[in-house]
Amino acid sequence: MEKFKSIKLNRNSGEHLYTQLYNSIKQLIMDEDIKANEKLPPIRKLAELLSLNNITVVKAYSLLEEKNYVYKKIGSGTFVSSVEEEFHRLDDEAYEDMRLMDRGQIEVRENVINFASATPTPELFPVGDFKEVLNEVLDRDKGLAFGYQESKGYFPLRECIVEYLKIYKISTLVENIQIISGAQQGIDVISKALLRHGDTVIVESPTYTGAIATFESRGAKMLQVPVSKEGIDLNVLEGYIERYKPKLIYTMPNFQNPTGYSYSRRAKKELLDLAYRKGLIVIEDDYSTDLNFYTDENATLKSMDSNENVIYIKSFSKIFMPGLRLGFLVVPRSVNNEILMAKQASDISTSGLIQRAFDLYLRKGIWRRHISYMKKIYKERFDIMSQSLEEYLPEATIFVKPAGGINFWIGLVDGFSAKELYSQSINADIAFIPGGVFYPQEVDSNFLRLSIADVYPDDIKIGIQRLSQAITKYYQRNSIRSQKKSIYRPIL
Amino acid sequence: MEKFKSIKLNRNSGEHLYTQLYNSIKQLIMDEDIKANEKLPPIRKLAELLSLNNITVVKAYSLLEEKNYVYKKIGSGTFVSSVEEEFHRLDDEAYEDMRLMDRGQIEVRENVINFASATPTPELFPVGDFKEVLNEVLDRDKGLAFGYQESKGYFPLRECIVEYLKIYKISTLVENIQIISGAQQGIDVISKALLRHGDTVIVESPTYTGAIATFESRGAKMLQVPVSKEGIDLNVLEGYIERYKPKLIYTMPNFQNPTGYSYSRRAKKELLDLAYRKGLIVIEDDYSTDLNFYTDENATLKSMDSNENVIYIKSFSKIFMPGLRLGFLVVPRSVNNEILMAKQASDISTSGLIQRAFDLYLRKGIWRRHISYMKKIYKERFDIMSQSLEEYLPEATIFVKPAGGINFWIGLVDGFSAKELYSQSINADIAFIPGGVFYPQEVDSNFLRLSIADVYPDDIKIGIQRLSQAITKYYQRNSIRSQKKSIYRPIL
Repeated sequence: MEKFKSIKLNRNSGEHLYTQLYNSIKQLIMDEDIKANEKLPPIRKLAELLSLNNITVVKAYSLLEEKNYVYKKIGSGTFVSSVEEEFHRLDDEAYEDMRLMDRGQIEVRENVINFASATPTPELFPVGDFKEVLNEVLDRDKGLAFGYQESKGYFPLRECIVEYLKIYKISTLVENIQIISGAQQGIDVISKALLRHGDTVIVESPTYTGAIATFESRGAKMLQVPVSKEGIDLNVLEGYIERYKPKLIYTMPNFQNPTGYSYSRRAKKELLDLAYRKGLIVIEDDYSTDLNFYTDENATLKSMDSNENVIYIKSFSKIFMPGLRLGFLVVPRSVNNEILMAKQASDISTSGLIQRAFDLYLRKGIWRRHISYMKKIYKERFDIMSQSLEEYLPEATIFVKPAGGINFWIGLVDGFSAKELYSQSINADIAFIPGGVFYPQEVDSNFLRLSIADVYPDDIKIGIQRLSQAITKYYQRNSIRSQKKSIYRPIL
Repeated sequence: MEKFKSIKLNRNSGEHLYTQLYNSIKQLIMDEDIKANEKLPPIRKLAELLSLNNITVVKAYSLLEEKNYVYKKIGSGTFVSSVEEEFHRLDDEAYEDMRLMDRGQIEVRENVINFASATPTPELFPVGDFKEVLNEVLDRDKGLAFGYQESKGYFPLRECIVEYLKIYKISTLVENIQIISGAQQGIDVISKALLRHGDTVIVESPTYTGAIATFESRGAKMLQVPVSKEGIDLNVLEGYIERYKPKLIYTMPNFQNPTGYSYSRRAKKELLDLAYRKGLIVIEDDYSTDLNFYTDENATLKSMDSNENVIYIKSFSKIFMPGLRLGFLVVPRSVNNEILMAKQASDISTSGLIQRAFDLYLRKGIWRRHISYMKKIYKERFDIMSQSLEEYLPEATIFVKPAGGINFWIGLVDGFSAKELYSQSINADIAFIPGGVFYPQEVDSNFLRLSIADVYPDDIKIGIQRLSQAITKYYQRNSIRSQKKSIYRPIL
């Protein structure tokens, strides 16, 4: 504390007290009066010492943290950064960036072949058709298109969706359809409705990063059940259910994100039986059942759900346009009202204009043509991707070809790290997501996710060649260390 | 339990077990084998008795509740409805409906003069202008308009907003602007970012129903501080802060909802000082500062916030169009990142198309003309409303004329209930919101809220005449009882 007594702040200068404090502490760090890894005083103590409000100190510390002069350890305080610490922190930031990539939030440099993004390339969007229906709606509905919409959603759109659902063999009623502003909001609304602080929720391992963020924010405990080529591990699942009484199970039964794996018919059936036996709600997040290329088994869980235990989330992001921020839930009657109230408290309602336009888009039947088109485009990329992986991936690198969807899950040789591969291949002009990102805790993994949403056919082959070279180099460079590392590894 | 043993379910029929159970219990109620106010067996016991899953019983009970055959008492179980119980329940439902009205969710019958809705009449929306900018954006940006948007918001729009904020004398940086899908989402995102389960938040009493719903859903404890004509009661506030260490204060300093009251300059200043002293974040929800008709004091808190403790929420619902689902936050740097992460977990980003169109709308400067237009329209309604209230309200009925905004807060004579007035004047073809709706707990209040957003000038006078007659009748009919009742009453 001695060193901090020397800090002098000027209450009459125009400058904020917290920036003055920030500058003073920064100077102490630069002058090495406070050393690397030394702890800063607790907020209250420093505030007392300098007769400041706590928040002034909080702000100064935050600014120091933002500028990488200090780092925080949860539960133990704020410490001065060393060069190494800085490296780790940057590393974590890069990890956070990769999570954002999964949600279409980060753009890569111009020349990079981007296997990281799961967002379709913009020229695929049906802009012309949508412009037409938008104008038609504006001419037809005028001001009504801009009023509040019913929280449950624009009724005609919900009617349309009941029809639309027949292609997934889901039969339901208009009152069970809840319009949402995208799948992410769907997960958020379900969490608000059905999870209380401290409740337990079961997720697949690995799983979608956005679901992890939402469950975490809700204060829920996440239990991870491994997924394999056949689906979720039902033994582990049943054990967890007995012991931890979870409130929800979050699943992606078809072409899972990130693995691309699909549940077998039997796994779907058994999951449902388990849910019925235990009285559990299962969330089915369906973002790409439509993109089925090589299987007869792409039934949605919801279509098999005779007892109404499944909440079905449908996103239009991958097959229509992510920027619409539109999707829907099929909600079991028993939780219908809770879901509606949670939607209300989230954003009252989804944009009426977008709902009305999309209603017209569905009514005109244009969507059938568009889905065929998207399937064709994606299938071309999918096939080139599979071939390239089969041809170029180095030996012993695991690749299970999925039957559809947009994601490929690649396993490096046991003991190697996808995160390390990422940092070592930064100059190879390819982007992918290291698998560790898809777990609730900070983990390393030997798996990585490649997506075909944002890459053109011509680039796929080149990209996979570059990736394969990078992997080979990485194996060679690190062959000695590889046996020593203990890495969290998903079950295949 | 005896009576329930007789229930026979057919597991091989196509009908769901829960609907079979529902029908069986319904029959027992109809036959009066189970009497009014008799308790149904606990879920687990009945499930055991009939060898069913718990969820089947839960569903059957929910269906019975929905159809008003039974009612739930929290913590004590499910009971058979009596006619009286049914009345109360319907009453509570009506209350819920009124909350929804506040959020633009309920439409009233054709002939009703609707003082309940705070949603502007649709012909006021700048549909033509907006159609133009929408088309311009579609032609200019094509597919990009439908891609994911940065979670923080479309950068050019955020730039525009920094400029736009100058009319409120708020000076900030682009990185402090967070785009949101309407003010309701703003409150939700702030709660996610800054409130943990069990945290305390201070709200004005009475306050906006949507804020109550969100704080409740987050598991926060709400402390209510009365607002008067001068603003929030600072003594009560300071006491609460000392004792309960709240995380947030939620306020509407200008033309508060529902009261229409505004904080005096001094109250604003003192609130800020208190926040600085205690290191507290204040939320300023600004939905109608623009609609200032009769005061020089409509400074926003944010414009006075030298120390960055205020999160400013701006909704475009009242002055532009609610159906846009667009608004923004001005966020103190210290919580910038938490807010961004919470937005991410809520819905990833707000519709890019709407953001781009609104950006163009702001850039073209059309908004200035529109705000003047809206001010003119609302002022006409405001003046007719004030005059009518002064002229027609029965004696001893309280009415404090606000200086702007769209809400009027009317106090019945002490001891009378606005809720009762509502049910007794159901045939008067007027709608308003009983004040009790604007408190976190179920309360009765002698105040009611009238809004001018959804009424035409010609109807206002007629509506207030009808209301005044209804009040007079209500006073006469209930004069004897009026002294006996103890009613929760806001401080004036």
